[in-house]
Amino acid sequence: MTERDKEFMRRAIELAQNGIEANDGGPFGAIVVRDGEIIGEGCNRVTSTNDPTAHAEVVAIREACQNLNSFQLDGCVIYTSCEPCPMCLGAIYWARPAKMYFACNREDAANVGFDDDFIYDEIALPIEQRRIESISILRDEGLMVFENWANKSDKTEY
Amino acid sequence: MTERDKEFMRRAIELAQNGIEANDGGPFGAIVVRDGEIIGEGCNRVTSTNDPTAHAEVVAIREACQNLNSFQLDGCVIYTSCEPCPMCLGAIYWARPAKMYFACNREDAANVGFDDDFIYDEIALPIEQRRIESISILRDEGLMVFENWANKSDKTEY
Repeated sequence: MTERDKEFMRRAIELAQNGIEANDGGPFGAIVVRDGEIIGEGCNRVTSTNDPTAHAEVVAIREACQNLNSFQLDGCVIYTSCEPCPMCLGAIYWARPAKMYFACNREDAANVGFDDDFIYDEIALPIEQRRIESISILRDEGLMVFENWANKSDKTEY
Repeated sequence: MTERDKEFMRRAIELAQNGIEANDGGPFGAIVVRDGEIIGEGCNRVTSTNDPTAHAEVVAIREACQNLNSFQLDGCVIYTSCEPCPMCLGAIYWARPAKMYFACNREDAANVGFDDDFIYDEIALPIEQRRIESISILRDEGLMVFENWANKSDKTEY
């Protein structure tokens, strides 16, 4: 951890604090850094924008990708004020940055009322044991689209 | 599974097919239904919008929440053409619908080149064993924001 890493994390934490003061949403902030420069910032905006996916990391990743004109964060570093929830961790894996720093952890989040730990537990369960009932139907019809995708010659993979 | 459920799933599958024909992104579609009415639709738009979070379920959830003016999908049902990746499953848990139907599964997705299964494996690992290096720093400073959140009297919880 360098002094620069601390500065970047302090900016993520500052975004979290600013967000709660502005009533944007929960106490979370995140930034995306590339070549020592911030290219995306976000705080949680779930309740102010009625968007359950507007977590700090998702907001910062989307902004960074717009700035890079890319759906990949090659060589980027994410600084987030709290260990990502499964949704945000999934978003990070899809964006494929080089590295992530986080401040608080999921137990800290649980202590102030956030369900991350419950969602981590649910994701690890077999589908039929999960709390939100999940049922597979029409798999054969769905597979036809996958076959069309596999055979498509002009596709952009990600 | 009712005939109505099949119709809704066929619409999700149709969105997936339309999406690949329009080069919006990968072969995935999803809808959100409330009281028998579609209130949100989406197909994957990752590559066309440079947004790694624009998976079909996320797009459909965001649209449904805008239509409901709510960050919660109480009593709603999600139909998705493929078992959600961890990011989308996380989004579903945050949106809290009553039920989910899916067509293809994660192995089917892996067979046409999508990493969902890899991300499921990574999420289950202890942080220090994950492929994207993840390091905790400045936890004490992050915790101060959580304390401010805990003490905040006018907060909206979610």
